[in-house]
Amino acid sequence: MKLLQSVRLRDSAASLEFLAEPLIRAALLEDIGHGGDLTTEAIVSPERTASARIVARHAGVVAGLPIAERVFAALDQRAELLASVSDGDRVGAGALVAQVRGGARAILTGERTALNFLCRLSGIATATRELVDLVAGTRARVADTRKTTPGLRALEKYAVRCGGGSNHRFGLDDAVLIKDNHLALAGSIHAAVVAARARAGHMMKIEVESLDQLRQALEEEIDAVLLDNMTPEQLGEAVRIVDGRLLTEASGGITRDTIAEVARSGVDLISVGRLTHSAPALDIGLDVDLSSG
Amino acid sequence: MKLLQSVRLRDSAASLEFLAEPLIRAALLEDIGHGGDLTTEAIVSPERTASARIVARHAGVVAGLPIAERVFAALDQRAELLASVSDGDRVGAGALVAQVRGGARAILTGERTALNFLCRLSGIATATRELVDLVAGTRARVADTRKTTPGLRALEKYAVRCGGGSNHRFGLDDAVLIKDNHLALAGSIHAAVVAARARAGHMMKIEVESLDQLRQALEEEIDAVLLDNMTPEQLGEAVRIVDGRLLTEASGGITRDTIAEVARSGVDLISVGRLTHSAPALDIGLDVDLSSG
Amino acid sequence: MKLLQSVRLRDSAASLEFLAEPLIRAALLEDIGHGGDLTTEAIVSPERTASARIVARHAGVVAGLPIAERVFAALDQRAELLASVSDGDRVGAGALVAQVRGGARAILTGERTALNFLCRLSGIATATRELVDLVAGTRARVADTRKTTPGLRALEKYAVRCGGGSNHRFGLDDAVLIKDNHLALAGSIHAAVVAARARAGHMMKIEVESLDQLRQALEEEIDAVLLDNMTPEQLGEAVRIVDGRLLTEASGGITRDTIAEVARSGVDLISVGRLTHSAPALDIGLDVDLSSG
Amino acid sequence: MKLLQSVRLRDSAASLEFLAEPLIRAALLEDIGHGGDLTTEAIVSPERTASARIVARHAGVVAGLPIAERVFAALDQRAELLASVSDGDRVGAGALVAQVRGGARAILTGERTALNFLCRLSGIATATRELVDLVAGTRARVADTRKTTPGLRALEKYAVRCGGGSNHRFGLDDAVLIKDNHLALAGSIHAAVVAARARAGHMMKIEVESLDQLRQALEEEIDAVLLDNMTPEQLGEAVRIVDGRLLTEASGGITRDTIAEVARSGVDLISVGRLTHSAPALDIGLDVDLSSG
Amino acid sequence: MKLLQSVRLRDSAASLEFLAEPLIRAALLEDIGHGGDLTTEAIVSPERTASARIVARHAGVVAGLPIAERVFAALDQRAELLASVSDGDRVGAGALVAQVRGGARAILTGERTALNFLCRLSGIATATRELVDLVAGTRARVADTRKTTPGLRALEKYAVRCGGGSNHRFGLDDAVLIKDNHLALAGSIHAAVVAARARAGHMMKIEVESLDQLRQALEEEIDAVLLDNMTPEQLGEAVRIVDGRLLTEASGGITRDTIAEVARSGVDLISVGRLTHSAPALDIGLDVDLSSG
Amino acid sequence: MKLLQSVRLRDSAASLEFLAEPLIRAALLEDIGHGGDLTTEAIVSPERTASARIVARHAGVVAGLPIAERVFAALDQRAELLASVSDGDRVGAGALVAQVRGGARAILTGERTALNFLCRLSGIATATRELVDLVAGTRARVADTRKTTPGLRALEKYAVRCGGGSNHRFGLDDAVLIKDNHLALAGSIHAAVVAARARAGHMMKIEVESLDQLRQALEEEIDAVLLDNMTPEQLGEAVRIVDGRLLTEASGGITRDTIAEVARSGVDLISVGRLTHSAPALDIGLDVDLSSG
Repeated sequence: MKLLQSVRLRDSAASLEFLAEPLIRAALLEDIGHGGDLTTEAIVSPERTASARIVARHAGVVAGLPIAERVFAALDQRAELLASVSDGDRVGAGALVAQVRGGARAILTGERTALNFLCRLSGIATATRELVDLVAGTRARVADTRKTTPGLRALEKYAVRCGGGSNHRFGLDDAVLIKDNHLALAGSIHAAVVAARARAGHMMKIEVESLDQLRQALEEEIDAVLLDNMTPEQLGEAVRIVDGRLLTEASGGITRDTIAEVARSGVDLISVGRLTHSAPALDIGLDVDLSSG
Repeated sequence: MKLLQSVRLRDSAASLEFLAEPLIRAALLEDIGHGGDLTTEAIVSPERTASARIVARHAGVVAGLPIAERVFAALDQRAELLASVSDGDRVGAGALVAQVRGGARAILTGERTALNFLCRLSGIATATRELVDLVAGTRARVADTRKTTPGLRALEKYAVRCGGGSNHRFGLDDAVLIKDNHLALAGSIHAAVVAARARAGHMMKIEVESLDQLRQALEEEIDAVLLDNMTPEQLGEAVRIVDGRLLTEASGGITRDTIAEVARSGVDLISVGRLTHSAPALDIGLDVDLSSG
Repeated sequence: MKLLQSVRLRDSAASLEFLAEPLIRAALLEDIGHGGDLTTEAIVSPERTASARIVARHAGVVAGLPIAERVFAALDQRAELLASVSDGDRVGAGALVAQVRGGARAILTGERTALNFLCRLSGIATATRELVDLVAGTRARVADTRKTTPGLRALEKYAVRCGGGSNHRFGLDDAVLIKDNHLALAGSIHAAVVAARARAGHMMKIEVESLDQLRQALEEEIDAVLLDNMTPEQLGEAVRIVDGRLLTEASGGITRDTIAEVARSGVDLISVGRLTHSAPALDIGLDVDLSSG
Repeated sequence: MKLLQSVRLRDSAASLEFLAEPLIRAALLEDIGHGGDLTTEAIVSPERTASARIVARHAGVVAGLPIAERVFAALDQRAELLASVSDGDRVGAGALVAQVRGGARAILTGERTALNFLCRLSGIATATRELVDLVAGTRARVADTRKTTPGLRALEKYAVRCGGGSNHRFGLDDAVLIKDNHLALAGSIHAAVVAARARAGHMMKIEVESLDQLRQALEEEIDAVLLDNMTPEQLGEAVRIVDGRLLTEASGGITRDTIAEVARSGVDLISVGRLTHSAPALDIGLDVDLSSG
Repeated sequence: MKLLQSVRLRDSAASLEFLAEPLIRAALLEDIGHGGDLTTEAIVSPERTASARIVARHAGVVAGLPIAERVFAALDQRAELLASVSDGDRVGAGALVAQVRGGARAILTGERTALNFLCRLSGIATATRELVDLVAGTRARVADTRKTTPGLRALEKYAVRCGGGSNHRFGLDDAVLIKDNHLALAGSIHAAVVAARARAGHMMKIEVESLDQLRQALEEEIDAVLLDNMTPEQLGEAVRIVDGRLLTEASGGITRDTIAEVARSGVDLISVGRLTHSAPALDIGLDVDLSSG
Repeated sequence: MKLLQSVRLRDSAASLEFLAEPLIRAALLEDIGHGGDLTTEAIVSPERTASARIVARHAGVVAGLPIAERVFAALDQRAELLASVSDGDRVGAGALVAQVRGGARAILTGERTALNFLCRLSGIATATRELVDLVAGTRARVADTRKTTPGLRALEKYAVRCGGGSNHRFGLDDAVLIKDNHLALAGSIHAAVVAARARAGHMMKIEVESLDQLRQALEEEIDAVLLDNMTPEQLGEAVRIVDGRLLTEASGGITRDTIAEVARSGVDLISVGRLTHSAPALDIGLDVDLSSG
């Protein structure tokens, strides 16, 4: 077991923590309500301090430790979280993830909110890591989508990175992705790409969802092509046609059972909505140390 | 198929819609970012109108239609959503859920946000309904927990009701639940209950997590007892001991495989965290009507 | 009885209503909580409409009707409030103040929030009118202070105007008022006034709290003098000394029993903190019309 | 006089302070406006430190010291408030309540906001304590209502607890209270209770306002009965009928003159709206220490 | 003169208007303060309607009409703005830009806020158009930077588009731009690009600020190169070296006097901070129609 | 060169810093977006510390150092800004303004936001100082207007004070200014002033825009007269007519070329909109210290 250490965000010491602050505050207000934590205030004296162990009940990949740390710190400035692993690390069932020390009220009042963040983000990291491992040895990267939980996109995309995945667009404003519904209204790929090129800045990439019109797409000034709901055979054929001229992205109902074969088709990217919309939470719990206080 | 109708919340015409407004706004801002929907603005003229079909790709229980309707209305006041089902209804794979009409830009820009709400809430309703059906014929009700997505608790608990489930506490301030971690700091159940009774108002119920000290709990002035991580046999024994004097609640790792047996133990309530923390999203999509505009 | 009419703010059709919007929203969220109005949602169908009568249980001066109207409208866009009196009007015990029509849920869910605004603001208007009437025939105007309820200052100062009172400063930034505590740190009135004159814009007035140093204050370039905690005799003497060169303001523990005598001392202004910090609410209730729906 | 000590919330070291933060911020912004504290900035140097005494001008019960402390700390991180009493303690006229030390600007700029919180909350605690003392020796507890100041409910209900009172519902979502206006729309008590039982979770209590239908109410599965606007004789008769099967709550225009007699009727709870809607502020002032700086 | 028409955003019917809403609200609150528009409320009756003409005092390019329209609509739902030009159109000195109709109070209270948006955005569009015209006939596009007014970036970048300019990054999260300060900490261009490629998603472009290490940059997998503070001769030499393999961007102190020569160097993009940080406002005024009301 | 010192606001140690906090936060969120600072997170390790020099590229007057300091502190609590000048000081081209020390990520991520505040505010201070110097020796003070950037008024008016200018109204609620558009709706100056006097508190000053009706204005109970778009000769004539009975304010298109002559007309105040709406930013840059880390 690694020595306990103060937590540190995996790839974002300043900006992610800054972005998460209002989310943490809103989550605590949602749980505390307008009346306060009745149970804790009734039972635990404000002077009481405690320590608690955050323990993985199942094996998985941890993500969100600095968020958990900030939850407790929002309630008690002196609270500290000492981690025995880092975001992105694998843990086994029963492993000690971190220790929290601080006011006993802050630990009990913050427990559920901290775990709600930690379990969800670790669930996403765990699901991502599973798929990333399944495509190891191919050129394919596993990417997320915009199918994220309303309000939590920045954190969920961070969890995907903790699991070894790659981030697709953050939102509608940082890349152009011309999908079927756009083409239904635009008429032709060509017209759509020309308009997008004029509107988007020079730092914006353009991707087109193109199934039967792949050859047509290759004639446009685009950066990537989205190959939606294709079989591995169709994907392999598409990769041969593209021949490295564009980045190829497979998507559509890809699961742990099919991803390896999809990856072997030669696509550059496999985007998987369920990383964020359907990953089960990783079971992580908090046990107050009986000898504490 | 039912006739299309204007949407209506299942059990909350005023307050849930009011509560959801800032969430909808935040979710849209998260997706639109600071730069706007580059793709749609480039390709689709602001005068263009369109209609689209919201379709269930898999079978399940729908929840969140009025939220979806508000997403589009936030972008285009004239947008309307005509539903062919109501929240709480079951739909089959391929079923038309609703039709959206309005500005084409609003439909495309709002699509992902509307679906992110609708798919998540319908996933929760679907998972709940499955468990509720499994305990039909017993006295047990299926309830949620506080293991909800940060920021979305009110909506997720609404989705549980749409699936036929029952709501546990909304937060730390609307009921007292004395759990193991509290008892670790409080010393005795008796001391904890007395303190809670003094702090909580007369309209607050008190529940105690009590495994080996069940008989001791029965002597306190409490309303319910939480029986965590017990086998069906242990639960049955506990129900016999309680003998109707308190409400009995089973919890802890209960799944679709075990819930029927748990229910047959005679407990009043089965609380299941995975309803909200691990239910997979229901796959619902939006298809722009090609003949529209 | 006057005919019912659509409500209208007394002296502010645009800006006060605009300012009040976030307060109304926050007040509703505070009451609705995260779980929604359990009682109303359980009992009243979303389609049900209703009308209700807002009735004064005691005599007083009404203030806040447009705020009440906005509370209901926030929950139901079609809700309307038809007033039989205007803000600033006196009503007798039992008088009909207004009628509300709209969704039955919106009326029941909004009732307490609407009344909480209306009763408090009407209480302030009533208390103000009582004092204003007591000084009728003198040159003295009755003014409020900054001793207002945190968050409600704009509305409470509006209520004072509805009662015939005058507004003192809105905050620390719209006038200079050099009080004893400032002078304790500044050394001399002269130094304080010179510094304030340099810092404040040309549109800012300066008032000095000056008890024993009144003659000294008269030599400064100031607009008003605050005479705190003086007897009517002392005030009369101060008015004679000032002799119209400055505006004179009496303050400090003035009640309905003493205000007439204070006013006869010849001061221009009498400021009374209890208008806003201690006025009892005016008892106004809401009765659902049994024949409605 | 007790020794000065650092402040501590009476029954909520973590959650109430957390909830109050945005209120404190909004109150300061309301007072500082957009232009800043003209007077203080003109007269007092930013380097100047000071100390001030917070003194009770009248006798009463103190509530809100930690809120006052946070007001000053929001303007100057180094500011500290040393209290000579705790929230809930009685003080006599002229008693030293606390001492503030910090930047002189922060003390002067924060003075009014800190006192506006402290005087209002102490006024509520004082009014509550007076009634609580009047019912001493009976079984009756004194409770608040939802007739609170918009935006301040959590703090005002805390002040009621500081005065020895008990809290009724925090909002519409933490208990069911079926009032006359609901019954006017619901038809029968029975139908209303059945619907409420189905909607509310198992941790929600149900109370019914029931005057002439008391016997009917006793047949329902409810927890409490609200006896509104009854004479002490009627209350006594109702208590005999209920005979301990439900909690009995008296309400409606109860004052310091009538509360003792109401309590002697044997009711469990007496709820009093004026605790929060009409309690006069307790007069507490702040005096800058002349020798400071 | 064109016929008056209802306003419409140039390239963003849904998302920009949605993004601007909180800014408009904050700007109005800033101007209205806590006391309301004293002058207008005193002088103008709430029933009074009026119309006013928005007139260009100098020639320029208009931007921000829909924002101005929303300002008035925020104060009076019935207010309408009828435009005689569209965003992006040139107007001469004295030209009628639009007519506003609605409540007279809303027009007067909203006037300054509406004009503050309109004059600033039109100033940016005018400055952009001037530079865009000066590079006509070259391959160079004129682009903005992140040197925008805090809080107004989305609107200012929209104004740049109205003036015919192109948008650079919206923020730190939608493209990678490795500048001198990064390289000072990173060691080598190569190390920096490899790290950025790993962190950024596949839809992110990478640009490097590279002066003397241009050849080194060409060996990296990047999309664009920033050529800062070069003379036109140096730029021309750099363009020859790059030879179309990357997009070339010139920046650094480029003015109306030098931009044409910079453009003739063959660069693809010229980014100009002063478009947003130093463009003088376009003088546009509002005249109430004397015959109105 | 002065010694480096910790920053301190020029005339506002408590309230301006407090007011600026949400602006700083919003500006950072605008730049960081939802995805975080991709470049910095990819290239710079979270443990890395750095120092950087903030340097004036052109000569001018500095304003906004404490705001810049808070930007860095928002991202890294340990960051510190050591200033070599104070707000309001003149600096030459190339002068060291301040040094920043802290986490390297925080410095790079906060750089642009800090400079966007600092350059704009310093630009305003510089433009103000230029005009203030041009009227030295006359009685005229240079004042700002309400033509400020939406959202930044408090900071921009602070910058005007740093440049030696004087502040006009902060908003519509802290003084009455009856302009042409009001008079167009009010009928007569007399009627407008009487109404304003009744509505405004005793601490509010009243100014009237009066061109041909100057003599009429002198008969009203007002404090100042706005002389808009007059020639210096007309202004001189107006000053003679007023003869010290009111404060005289010149406005309308006054530039560095005309202000001295305007000042010599004897007016008390010259208000200049371009101080805030058109002052070019002062060019200030940040250079990471290569030897740092």
